Amino acid sequence: MTTQFDIRRIARAGESRIILLIADGLGGYPHPDTGRSELEAARLPNLDALARESACGLTVPVAPGITPGSGPGHLALLGYDPVRHHVGRGVMEALGVGLDLAEEDAAARGNFCIVDNVGRLVDRRAGRISSERGAELADLLDRIERSHGEVSVHGVRGHRFVAVFRGAGSNLEVTDTDPGLEGCRPLRSEPLTENSGDLAAAVNAFAARAGHALKDSQAQAVVLRGISSPTPLPSFADRYMLHPAAIAAYPMYRGLAKLAGMEVLDTGDDFGQEIATLSAAFSTGSHDFFFLHYKPADAAGEDGDFEAKVEAMEALDSKIPAILQLEPDVLIVAGDHSTPAVVGGHSWHPVPIAVNSKLTRGDGVPEFTERAVRDGSLGTMAATSVMALALAHGGRLNKYGP
Amino acid sequence: MTTQFDIRRIARAGESRIILLIADGLGGYPHPDTGRSELEAARLPNLDALARESACGLTVPVAPGITPGSGPGHLALLGYDPVRHHVGRGVMEALGVGLDLAEEDAAARGNFCIVDNVGRLVDRRAGRISSERGAELADLLDRIERSHGEVSVHGVRGHRFVAVFRGAGSNLEVTDTDPGLEGCRPLRSEPLTENSGDLAAAVNAFAARAGHALKDSQAQAVVLRGISSPTPLPSFADRYMLHPAAIAAYPMYRGLAKLAGMEVLDTGDDFGQEIATLSAAFSTGSHDFFFLHYKPADAAGEDGDFEAKVEAMEALDSKIPAILQLEPDVLIVAGDHSTPAVVGGHSWHPVPIAVNSKLTRGDGVPEFTERAVRDGSLGTMAATSVMALALAHGGRLNKYGP
Repeated sequence: MTTQFDIRRIARAGESRIILLIADGLGGYPHPDTGRSELEAARLPNLDALARESACGLTVPVAPGITPGSGPGHLALLGYDPVRHHVGRGVMEALGVGLDLAEEDAAARGNFCIVDNVGRLVDRRAGRISSERGAELADLLDRIERSHGEVSVHGVRGHRFVAVFRGAGSNLEVTDTDPGLEGCRPLRSEPLTENSGDLAAAVNAFAARAGHALKDSQAQAVVLRGISSPTPLPSFADRYMLHPAAIAAYPMYRGLAKLAGMEVLDTGDDFGQEIATLSAAFSTGSHDFFFLHYKPADAAGEDGDFEAKVEAMEALDSKIPAILQLEPDVLIVAGDHSTPAVVGGHSWHPVPIAVNSKLTRGDGVPEFTERAVRDGSLGTMAATSVMALALAHGGRLNKYGP
Repeated sequence: MTTQFDIRRIARAGESRIILLIADGLGGYPHPDTGRSELEAARLPNLDALARESACGLTVPVAPGITPGSGPGHLALLGYDPVRHHVGRGVMEALGVGLDLAEEDAAARGNFCIVDNVGRLVDRRAGRISSERGAELADLLDRIERSHGEVSVHGVRGHRFVAVFRGAGSNLEVTDTDPGLEGCRPLRSEPLTENSGDLAAAVNAFAARAGHALKDSQAQAVVLRGISSPTPLPSFADRYMLHPAAIAAYPMYRGLAKLAGMEVLDTGDDFGQEIATLSAAFSTGSHDFFFLHYKPADAAGEDGDFEAKVEAMEALDSKIPAILQLEPDVLIVAGDHSTPAVVGGHSWHPVPIAVNSKLTRGDGVPEFTERAVRDGSLGTMAATSVMALALAHGGRLNKYGP
């Protein structure tokens, strides 16, 4: 075990351009009927061809056996120790919908819920309420809260919203009011850090006011989770001497990039529009590092839909030529974690990675699958080392030591 | 490189049952005549079949190139950093024979020895004295020491005994009196920690009294090693939210399990009896984690007896069906270190591991050998990560982070 290496000592500016394509939930697991994983079952001519000319391997997001959420999975790939740097879910969601959080604000992820006549949760997702209706309910709460001047409420998608508790103080964290299951009442929030007592009280008061305001609505209560103030990450740009841009259709990933100080580029709702955004940015030359996020593989895996995950990977594969056409100096295809359809959620399994540059001529890995990349030159590595490889392949690192 | 992950943050209780079978000294090395290792030479139909349906790989007990003793090898597999947590050999031996050690006691492993007329060591094992005779000598010393009220002496096996220095103080460690070779005199013990001066004096006084008491016996002197007070390990049960049991025919491994707070189940002298104990415990449902120890492979390797090690592995193989019949949710076959017969002792070589659960469908590893498991999905991993994999496969870990 070597002491953590501080890459700032050797990072240097340069002309090269690096794309880190994070395919969310990339890794899979063999289907019991066929013995083939999603990647093995999919037709991936472009990713396979890329793998044949890349340095390949597997990444371990946090540690062997540990299943990461999206936050730790992405932090690790961006080079932040995911155990030292903890980002609350509320904070990520708030940043993702474009809210600017001060260090003294706290954010919560909220759900609109259906409750029975004694307040027990019947549906934590309010019958999968529409985004339009969810936004209306969020606006209703926001108007009421504005008179108190402390809380702002913002619809996200469907039953989900964000609540921001302004000026609550820094280094705050309180427990969830969301019990995570139905049949019981929402919980009271309790402080998790010394100075979080006031925030817990504010959270409980907000939940009570919301319940009162919503009582005749399609959803009659709210539950909140991931309630904390933001802990800024060390600047990605400073650490790596890069001009980084993030392109992500989904709010959470834009939020994470903001926390690392990346510029978040306006883009559309799907990966095709992300590629268009990437192409436009390449033509202006405004940035030299692109975090490009691809969501559908994870969503399909979470649904336990093997075939949908295969299709999501085939859809990604079809876009690879458009990325290569931009002639980036380095293209890395990686994943924040595995989301095998047989698991129906995130898992701890190491995630395939391919690092492509003029310096890679291939490891003899014939295809981009969990099994094949094991034979690659990168071996099984910590995800936190990916940024160093990105910079090295981009000619952005000086020699270490005399 | 990621900060050490604290698994207590995400461990959860559950119904699954996990067996960690530690085959002591499991790893071997190719015989010079055949080019095949012990595992490759052995007929292991059950372990091979298990490997074909498992996630396989190699574990590094402490660090590449480091040959661990039994203590660090086991600590690592149980998830304790073997560099931070040091357990003295005397302490392990004392706990293993059922002695309760207080934090202020110190324990030493002792040998009865034959010395010449000027006190030089002629045989550090007293001519492989019988266990009966060794126990008589230990009782003789114990009776004499009892009048001093400080030291208790307990026969272990053959020439080996344990001496416990009661109430000596905590955080004590002193040097061995055992020079580790013959032809010279036993050494004077010296303090290794600041407050260990009194213990060193007590050790030297005890050795002098023992030499006087034994002068007309089959053994005329004692040497002591591994002399320290116990440092309790963080509770295994608390850390992993498990109800752990240890099943081991050999005292040292029972002692280690006690130090980690495991319940040690009464069992017999051989692995067949260990399996019977395991079966009985499974039927009562009293525990959900079993550390099951298999010693003979290590003993054969230590003796440099290639054929005996092959046979020991074949004997273990024949018991695998009886273990699988219990239908554990997770069965892990691992080793604390390698003990290649060609080395005739412990070695630094990475050790094969197979993790079997409903979630493993096989890595394409055809057999359970050092060479074949290299292609497995676990790669070459730190032994300290094994417990996280055990829990992950048993559905005992929450997702880490949002």
